Amino acid sequence: MASNAEKVSEEVKKLSIEDDEDIVNPWDVVSSSAKGVDYSKLIKRFGSSEIDKELIDRMVKLTGKPPHHFLRRGIFFSHRDMHQILDLVEKKKGFYLYTGRGPSSESMHLGHLIPFIFTKWLQDTFDVPLVIQMTDDEKFLWKDLTIEETNKLAHENAKDIIACGFDKDKTFIFSDVEYISESTEFYKMMCKIQKLVTFNQVKGIFGFTDSDSIGKISFPAIQATPSFSLAFPQIFKGKKDVPCLIPCAIDQDPYFRMTRDVAPRLGLLKPALLHSTFFPALQGAHGKMSASDPNSSIFLTDSDEQIKTKINKYAFSGGRPTEEEHRKHGGDCDTDVSYQYLTFFLEDDDKLADIQSRYSSGKMLTGELKQELITVLQKLVGEHRIRRADVTDNLVNEYMKSRKLKFDY
Amino acid sequence: MASNAEKVSEEVKKLSIEDDEDIVNPWDVVSSSAKGVDYSKLIKRFGSSEIDKELIDRMVKLTGKPPHHFLRRGIFFSHRDMHQILDLVEKKKGFYLYTGRGPSSESMHLGHLIPFIFTKWLQDTFDVPLVIQMTDDEKFLWKDLTIEETNKLAHENAKDIIACGFDKDKTFIFSDVEYISESTEFYKMMCKIQKLVTFNQVKGIFGFTDSDSIGKISFPAIQATPSFSLAFPQIFKGKKDVPCLIPCAIDQDPYFRMTRDVAPRLGLLKPALLHSTFFPALQGAHGKMSASDPNSSIFLTDSDEQIKTKINKYAFSGGRPTEEEHRKHGGDCDTDVSYQYLTFFLEDDDKLADIQSRYSSGKMLTGELKQELITVLQKLVGEHRIRRADVTDNLVNEYMKSRKLKFDY
Repeated sequence: MASNAEKVSEEVKKLSIEDDEDIVNPWDVVSSSAKGVDYSKLIKRFGSSEIDKELIDRMVKLTGKPPHHFLRRGIFFSHRDMHQILDLVEKKKGFYLYTGRGPSSESMHLGHLIPFIFTKWLQDTFDVPLVIQMTDDEKFLWKDLTIEETNKLAHENAKDIIACGFDKDKTFIFSDVEYISESTEFYKMMCKIQKLVTFNQVKGIFGFTDSDSIGKISFPAIQATPSFSLAFPQIFKGKKDVPCLIPCAIDQDPYFRMTRDVAPRLGLLKPALLHSTFFPALQGAHGKMSASDPNSSIFLTDSDEQIKTKINKYAFSGGRPTEEEHRKHGGDCDTDVSYQYLTFFLEDDDKLADIQSRYSSGKMLTGELKQELITVLQKLVGEHRIRRADVTDNLVNEYMKSRKLKFDY
Repeated sequence: MASNAEKVSEEVKKLSIEDDEDIVNPWDVVSSSAKGVDYSKLIKRFGSSEIDKELIDRMVKLTGKPPHHFLRRGIFFSHRDMHQILDLVEKKKGFYLYTGRGPSSESMHLGHLIPFIFTKWLQDTFDVPLVIQMTDDEKFLWKDLTIEETNKLAHENAKDIIACGFDKDKTFIFSDVEYISESTEFYKMMCKIQKLVTFNQVKGIFGFTDSDSIGKISFPAIQATPSFSLAFPQIFKGKKDVPCLIPCAIDQDPYFRMTRDVAPRLGLLKPALLHSTFFPALQGAHGKMSASDPNSSIFLTDSDEQIKTKINKYAFSGGRPTEEEHRKHGGDCDTDVSYQYLTFFLEDDDKLADIQSRYSSGKMLTGELKQELITVLQKLVGEHRIRRADVTDNLVNEYMKSRKLKFDY
């Protein structure tokens, strides 16, 4: 999936700026506010639903498991048809999870981890299969990379994904380049979707222009395809009615609005969605992190020292210019990137509330807040580093082998 | 390959009519003249070269074999870079042949046979491998057929193609749906082409509009792909510089103009081409035969009786209204469809010249001319029928199996 800031078509940019709205599409996320994108506005604009207390309570009741802190804290904030997925769970019927990654660089950053951390929790909580699409074809089409390079990156990135701890018996990771050229059913589904979507439609949804390549123009059908269980006969035995739940960042929603539009015309089920907010850049919540600017992000390959330096040097602070002012007026947690990062990675609600209270009141200084984050991230990245070192090429091949998964539909 | 008359985009239609030119594109061939398309004009418009005496003489000299009557009679009339192919032959270097068929109906007609008859002759004459693309994905995208239906038609049509007598050891017939989903190198090549072609370009070449499906818009890359030897590693061992020669009807040229434009940007060789004129409909040379109008064509499944009835009833006559007038002024071979058909299927030059002379002078009546054609076609179709009956599903599978061919590059 496309996840890096890139030039958005002039048309879409103008539209968004004229409407004074945040720009949110698969290639660009731009907000004029230091607090970042206005997500309640986005829910209205995209026509999705808020993940409210009622939905979270229902998940807890059905699974008997506490809600993930991404849910408790509104990091996954929006959904489509999640109640229908829970109806199925209630009836003890199965569904499957689908998420993805656009492999455009070797090193993934913290922002890339968000959907995978949450998807792992969903897999553990609902005990269902998962397909993970590595869009090496897409990254080839969009970037100045060869298809051999993006295919190699798909395998590299798969190691980081596997290191998140997905159940090997229930997870199929696939590269488009490899799986399309080994699955007739996947290719057929691609063609079926491509037949139903016009250039007018993708122009409207993605802002493509006449100067875009025909590869880009037809790509949305490829990202839509894994939403349908028919594309994986080895997993779903040719069943066409296994529902799909897609956890992803909200910028991917355009792909799935298109998919949901096409589904009934194919006689297939619309995929359900869970949308996350964006993980802010170190420099502030104006945009997403960018893999092309090493100082905008903490990478999963960063050393303890690099993590410390980057946060101390680049993490945008909501603190006051002088210690005196800070002690008097307190810091602003809404714009403070270190605090924001803690909402993503510090699981302990009490500790987070304590930090929030002490920082806002001025009892805690920016340096102390940053130290809290450095400790949390050094532990997180350090543990990831150890798990990733254990992921061999052989293990990658096992996850990426087309096969039956341990689940009976 | 698209080979049936179909609605051409309004834009292209208007353009062509305003320019007072014949309409020639993969979906429509319309001429205002009873003599059909003006082919010398077309050569200029498309920027191809005439197949002249010098080229034919060179082929004869190099191969030591007499020229096919399609060459002698200008049925294959235009080419691109055929001299470069002959340069290779001179140096005893190999090339390969590529042609195709869009499987939109079970029964193929005489017009569909033309490229295959000529391709078989080329294969026999130059002793080179051949790949035949069955565009079941294309026909699914363009027609009101399911992808399962067009895939089945690809196998049915393969039987008629095999019945033309291609060398099994040197011929690979493939369905797009099947081969794309089994060949990583083919899919990669598709992506590489799709990255280099914009919507603007396919709009200009094929007349696509914003209302066309993204499947149609990206399809030209799929027809371009077999022009490059890298798409068939099992045949060409990963060599990227095996030249390709494409015999096809001139309406397919837009696909290969695009391919030739892309080739140098991929660091690959431009395919060479040999273009044929159109096989006229029974009703006259205004357009191509249509598989959807059973009375416009002789089908390979027609019985002797049907052949006789269709020709007697529907073949447009260049004869005079009364026998008296005909005896006096003679018939017009240029517009007489029965005579035109004989130029395609009566191999004996002397006999054809005799018929031409007797019909033009009025010595031969339309009924007699039609009887000559009926005899020729009953024999041709009858022999095809017998050969096709011998083509088993197993034999089809052998031709359609991805494998090394008997040729060393």
